Amino acid sequence: YATDASNIKFDFKTPEVVVFVETIEDVQNVVKYANLHEIPIIARGAGTNMVGSCVSSFGGIVLNFTKMNKILDINTTNMSATVQPGVVLGDLKSEVDKLGLFYPPDPSNYVVSTIGGSIAQSSGGAQAFKYGTTKDYVLSLKVVTADGNLLTLGSETSKESVGYHLSQLIVGSEGTLGIVVEATLKLIPKQKEKKLVVAYFNNISDAVNSVTRILTSNVFPVSIDFMDKNSISTVNSFLNCGLKSEYNFLLMIELDGCEKSIDNQTEVVKKILDESSSNEVMIARTDIEAELIWKARRASFAATAKLAPDVVSDDIIVPRDRVAEMVSKCYEIADKYSLKLCLIGHIGDGNLHPQIALNLDNDYEYRNYVQARDEMYSYAIILGGTISAEHGIGLEKKDYLESTIGKESLEYMKAIKKIFDPKNILNPGKIF
Amino acid sequence: YATDASNIKFDFKTPEVVVFVETIEDVQNVVKYANLHEIPIIARGAGTNMVGSCVSSFGGIVLNFTKMNKILDINTTNMSATVQPGVVLGDLKSEVDKLGLFYPPDPSNYVVSTIGGSIAQSSGGAQAFKYGTTKDYVLSLKVVTADGNLLTLGSETSKESVGYHLSQLIVGSEGTLGIVVEATLKLIPKQKEKKLVVAYFNNISDAVNSVTRILTSNVFPVSIDFMDKNSISTVNSFLNCGLKSEYNFLLMIELDGCEKSIDNQTEVVKKILDESSSNEVMIARTDIEAELIWKARRASFAATAKLAPDVVSDDIIVPRDRVAEMVSKCYEIADKYSLKLCLIGHIGDGNLHPQIALNLDNDYEYRNYVQARDEMYSYAIILGGTISAEHGIGLEKKDYLESTIGKESLEYMKAIKKIFDPKNILNPGKIF
Repeated sequence: YATDASNIKFDFKTPEVVVFVETIEDVQNVVKYANLHEIPIIARGAGTNMVGSCVSSFGGIVLNFTKMNKILDINTTNMSATVQPGVVLGDLKSEVDKLGLFYPPDPSNYVVSTIGGSIAQSSGGAQAFKYGTTKDYVLSLKVVTADGNLLTLGSETSKESVGYHLSQLIVGSEGTLGIVVEATLKLIPKQKEKKLVVAYFNNISDAVNSVTRILTSNVFPVSIDFMDKNSISTVNSFLNCGLKSEYNFLLMIELDGCEKSIDNQTEVVKKILDESSSNEVMIARTDIEAELIWKARRASFAATAKLAPDVVSDDIIVPRDRVAEMVSKCYEIADKYSLKLCLIGHIGDGNLHPQIALNLDNDYEYRNYVQARDEMYSYAIILGGTISAEHGIGLEKKDYLESTIGKESLEYMKAIKKIFDPKNILNPGKIF
Repeated sequence: YATDASNIKFDFKTPEVVVFVETIEDVQNVVKYANLHEIPIIARGAGTNMVGSCVSSFGGIVLNFTKMNKILDINTTNMSATVQPGVVLGDLKSEVDKLGLFYPPDPSNYVVSTIGGSIAQSSGGAQAFKYGTTKDYVLSLKVVTADGNLLTLGSETSKESVGYHLSQLIVGSEGTLGIVVEATLKLIPKQKEKKLVVAYFNNISDAVNSVTRILTSNVFPVSIDFMDKNSISTVNSFLNCGLKSEYNFLLMIELDGCEKSIDNQTEVVKKILDESSSNEVMIARTDIEAELIWKARRASFAATAKLAPDVVSDDIIVPRDRVAEMVSKCYEIADKYSLKLCLIGHIGDGNLHPQIALNLDNDYEYRNYVQARDEMYSYAIILGGTISAEHGIGLEKKDYLESTIGKESLEYMKAIKKIFDPKNILNPGKIF
């Protein structure tokens, strides 16, 4: 409970208490106690956070939601699901799938990570390209406020325009404004078929240009992901999955729709890729073959972790027409600081996940890494991008917040925090 | 400038000044002046607002944005458009269409209404069923704050998770937190083909059941709209469009995709409708025929306006499994208060637009209408719905806000308003 998946050296204090909450009333009682005694309170699900959002900076009480893990209702007529925050994302996804419905958010760790965490961090994933991120699927939230009251925000209907979007303010607020204790999520119809097209490029600009041609040819892929040569080699030796490592980049384009639509889209995509300077185009023959390639893509973090005692996975985003520049810069920076960099990401969104294998206990390596990170963030901002697409700010990125969004925006955020949490007991030290 | 499309008897004061702003600096200068002298300031585009959001309650300055109507950039690689707030929605939609891209929000008045207004009210439209509302397409906003400063909120990238979603807080805030002076909007790939399937039902529950069957059969329609018998008759005599008025409800299901996908979806939808108790199923043979039916649907407001000196168009939403109950209740209430009711709406979203023709200058009719409205709102809330799906709160619905969202949520909203607009000069009297 003192760590999460961010694996960074923080100045944290081990929490004094971990409470396994089972009901909304449990949460209210703990929060009321914490409020009375001004004790920090940190909500936690699977602890897979990448930026230190669910570790405790000042000790205090960890609210463990893993026992509040019931899917309370799946309503096929309303296309909505009501869940407790401890529900594992993958469990929800597979339950609604059985009913012909689809819950799109798919962070790479969805097999273990929880709904509560995905709401706290506004998680995305590969399918965010077509289907958006968690914020687009939150209809209403039950939230325990800093004084222990229970609020219902938003509406269970698919739309609402009733004053300020308080539920959207809670999404991505990393447990600093209130504690989500129940969520009603939007579901959409499941598409019948999927098809994965893979292309190898030596030049990332060529890949980006092909993507633009595809997107202006009436094709809307579910995901447009990529892996670089280092990631491919690393994953190959970890999983023995046989991806080709003689090219610099692997582009993954996933399509969905009915069978005939898939055939048509695949044809359009293949033609564009064949006409491009792509070196090889491969279409997964079966869903199993496609899933193997996705498994390789998702395993990249774990594979990179084998290269050194530690691994850090970052999250930056730039407009798609600046992706090539950002990719070059990442290599330049990794070179400069002698860092082992594996680059993957959702290239459709311009979202890169630089994964760096290193020994965090080695001060030299750690200092190099921090320098490299500074330079990557600065460059992303220069290119019109930002320092987090789907991981959040947490502890890891809070020092970069003011330079990213500006002093005035930061002041507005702090003022909002003060309204919701005047005693600063809700996940203190995170974001700000 | 003293009225809008809401057409309700308000206690308003005619604005003292109308300023046709042409640059961001113009806006800043006017706001700084207004801030210094504590003068109300109301942003206004085409004035098509349905709830009185852009009329002035206390006089003051109207900022007219119709001359700030430039599309500043359409970036096909990033799939984004940067626009001034006075850009007419329809103009943006047709410009991006030429480039193979699509901007989905489509309130019925999109031929005249502006981007600024659609952001202020978080507008939806028929295509919101598949593609979401304005909030899902706002990437970043330039906003002039109450003190005349210029803030950039959000990120031009397709995703971001950098502190609280301030840009989402501005969307739907009806000009009460800041004045949007520029917006970067997300675009998506345009689908090649569309097809409209129409079915006549006598029973709304049967229509809703068919919709559920369609949505759990791997089909995701763009729009699922409906018109009732009164709307059909009224529109028929207004436009002579030949819709059948012998049945109680007309269901409109629009599909999109490539040609082959459309054929497949149409087949699935037709089969489900044929197996249902639908009385007649008709597939528009051409895009022109489909557009005529949509034109009829969109003309319903104008047609209803011919029945009496005035017309009010309301906006309520309930979960889809309660639509049948809400529809019955609307008829019961209209009967009770002798009101001419034409019912249309986005049934896929559970969103009803009761349109009532009456003489607002007749006190008896007006009092009846207010009573009827009260009862409709209360019932929508009882059914788990809410009082606005896509029109906003404005002046018209502010008295219902507390009973809809509760005192505590309202207090949070007021506190947020106070942070952004301590002197209460930005569109005062709206929402609260």
